[in-house]
Amino acid sequence: MKKRNIITLITDFGEQDGFVGTMKGVILNINPDAQMIDISHKIQRHHINAGAFLLYNSYKYFPQGTIHTIIVDPGVGSDRKSVVVETSDYLFVAPDNKVLNYIFNYEKNYKVFEIQNKKLFLNNVSRTFHGRDIFAPVAAHLSLGLPAEKVGPQIYNFNKSEISTPKIYPDYIETQIIYCDIFGNLITNVEENLLKNKNFNIRFDQFMITQLSTSYSEGTDFKPIAIIGSSNFLEIAVNKDSAKEILKLDVGDKIIIHTHKEQIT
Amino acid sequence: MKKRNIITLITDFGEQDGFVGTMKGVILNINPDAQMIDISHKIQRHHINAGAFLLYNSYKYFPQGTIHTIIVDPGVGSDRKSVVVETSDYLFVAPDNKVLNYIFNYEKNYKVFEIQNKKLFLNNVSRTFHGRDIFAPVAAHLSLGLPAEKVGPQIYNFNKSEISTPKIYPDYIETQIIYCDIFGNLITNVEENLLKNKNFNIRFDQFMITQLSTSYSEGTDFKPIAIIGSSNFLEIAVNKDSAKEILKLDVGDKIIIHTHKEQIT
Amino acid sequence: MKKRNIITLITDFGEQDGFVGTMKGVILNINPDAQMIDISHKIQRHHINAGAFLLYNSYKYFPQGTIHTIIVDPGVGSDRKSVVVETSDYLFVAPDNKVLNYIFNYEKNYKVFEIQNKKLFLNNVSRTFHGRDIFAPVAAHLSLGLPAEKVGPQIYNFNKSEISTPKIYPDYIETQIIYCDIFGNLITNVEENLLKNKNFNIRFDQFMITQLSTSYSEGTDFKPIAIIGSSNFLEIAVNKDSAKEILKLDVGDKIIIHTHKEQIT
Repeated sequence: MKKRNIITLITDFGEQDGFVGTMKGVILNINPDAQMIDISHKIQRHHINAGAFLLYNSYKYFPQGTIHTIIVDPGVGSDRKSVVVETSDYLFVAPDNKVLNYIFNYEKNYKVFEIQNKKLFLNNVSRTFHGRDIFAPVAAHLSLGLPAEKVGPQIYNFNKSEISTPKIYPDYIETQIIYCDIFGNLITNVEENLLKNKNFNIRFDQFMITQLSTSYSEGTDFKPIAIIGSSNFLEIAVNKDSAKEILKLDVGDKIIIHTHKEQIT
Repeated sequence: MKKRNIITLITDFGEQDGFVGTMKGVILNINPDAQMIDISHKIQRHHINAGAFLLYNSYKYFPQGTIHTIIVDPGVGSDRKSVVVETSDYLFVAPDNKVLNYIFNYEKNYKVFEIQNKKLFLNNVSRTFHGRDIFAPVAAHLSLGLPAEKVGPQIYNFNKSEISTPKIYPDYIETQIIYCDIFGNLITNVEENLLKNKNFNIRFDQFMITQLSTSYSEGTDFKPIAIIGSSNFLEIAVNKDSAKEILKLDVGDKIIIHTHKEQIT
Repeated sequence: MKKRNIITLITDFGEQDGFVGTMKGVILNINPDAQMIDISHKIQRHHINAGAFLLYNSYKYFPQGTIHTIIVDPGVGSDRKSVVVETSDYLFVAPDNKVLNYIFNYEKNYKVFEIQNKKLFLNNVSRTFHGRDIFAPVAAHLSLGLPAEKVGPQIYNFNKSEISTPKIYPDYIETQIIYCDIFGNLITNVEENLLKNKNFNIRFDQFMITQLSTSYSEGTDFKPIAIIGSSNFLEIAVNKDSAKEILKLDVGDKIIIHTHKEQIT
């Protein structure tokens, strides 16, 4: 069994109550050599889409064999399933609630196993903290090289849905804000290539954006800019300020990008 | 001397000012192989009871030999003592201010040593940051295998008091809220077995709870539920909301649980 | 090439959006044995001076060979330079924007190299996240033993300015608040030796401080004290409360310390 020592953690547990530290204790009890990397524990409570997006943004930057553990789990203690998903490069451990949606949409080959093997769990499984009692020990055993199929049977009826994508019309693109980062930058679902060789404009009440900026610092005070962000999506940002607050927009809101082919002059 | 490489950290230092990172630098200078695990640095400032409870909630999940370092220390720089406590499985490094109360109440055998051996400290001990200058280097030396008795003499007059426990009357239990987590869940000092085979009800202004729920998601909107939480204590929770805010209750407040034996029908 | 496994991280990226976790993934991809230590990711956005001060406060506590990575970078994507600075004991990786000012002022010998070697970068360098695409991989390669001069040419025209120091007059010292910690303690630029053998007083609207305290807990409620803090600078603090809020002072504000030689009586 191959050792895969890195376990990443994405949760909505916050950093106050020791939940994550306790999970790390459980992991170290099983695999003393595990290397645990926090990606975020500040997902807004129960915001499955935000967890899914952060995972998508980060998972490929980790070495092959990394075990990504994502626990945004409003249904803990109910009859929702838990799964291990295996792709060519990674393992994912998560509740079966669409938090792995980006993986299912962007990865070509994957297998989904339902976590059922109680031998892997802590002795007493609580009703409210499966992170500690189920997900952490399962991730730890996988990090020791346990094959994914040992956690339970392969399943095909797992939770999955289409990722939100922009709607493209002759004269405009209708895009949606899919994530808002801590700086108030509004990340849309428009990828860079959609805007290539196009003139476009985005109109807000008092502002109009007519081009892509190449750095945040290009923006003048309080004026929003459009920039291709680090996740390769179009972002609306305000230099040294919060686009979210200035434009009063948030996740789920729509933005219209007026487009027309670049004129050859 | 046995190596014990894992050092956990619980403090009220926050995560902004680099206090914890600096402590880790001190530890790595002494033991480059130390593995440091953050449990929480967001204990409310000077809330010794909250630190004590988080330690109680997490310490047993770590491997034997783990060194737990707990610094909630309003008396830093005063003449309060500092201690190392040794149990059969763990070492604890802390100020002598009742932050180890749960350990003293739940562990059967323990020894308390007063930290006096200045050779273990950093060269210049500041008045305000014993975490860096005393606790971190002491924990690091212990992690290299230093026997606990080398930190200073065993003492018997350390700070200890009874843990708050529920008061049990024929028709009701008077319980106290001992911790409120980041989700607003109110954790009482009633353990699961106290409610076994009993009918009970808890009355709030507009709500009455008459049974234990088995998952947070059972709760309907804004209506509080009672659930045995992950620390095996009765919690009052509100699905997707904060019981603390909805019920206007907080740590220290009392809750009456009306009880009567389960009727055999 | 000598291995230097410890990489510290100071950023203003916050802890919500997975930026830091992603950087760690990049580092582990290059050096699986890197040990990454977070110092702070909660520098107030774009506050270069705060980042510089936290670095100054922490860097010497780390083992020789540590690579300190500091990313407070309002100019990301613009034409600001990036640098590696080598001192006798440490390497520093940062944008060239005065965030290394304390190093330049307190270290005697250092060399500055401009990061230009694109072979060290990730394949696609984004416009907005050089932490992931440039700084993390450069730090990781250095941790494998890459000599600093391999990142690019030595330069002499880097950004550097004098550190703010107190102005000393016959009867008073004019000092400035250079940092405010999470507890609201106001840290000035007056070092301990400036007050040695001197009587002094500091007057606020309703309070006067006439001596140094030796612990925070000496202070009575709501009354400010002066204390030599853990960075060896004079701090104004309020026991169990925030000096910042009670005195309505913040970073950049001036404080006058009235001085006179200690009278021999």
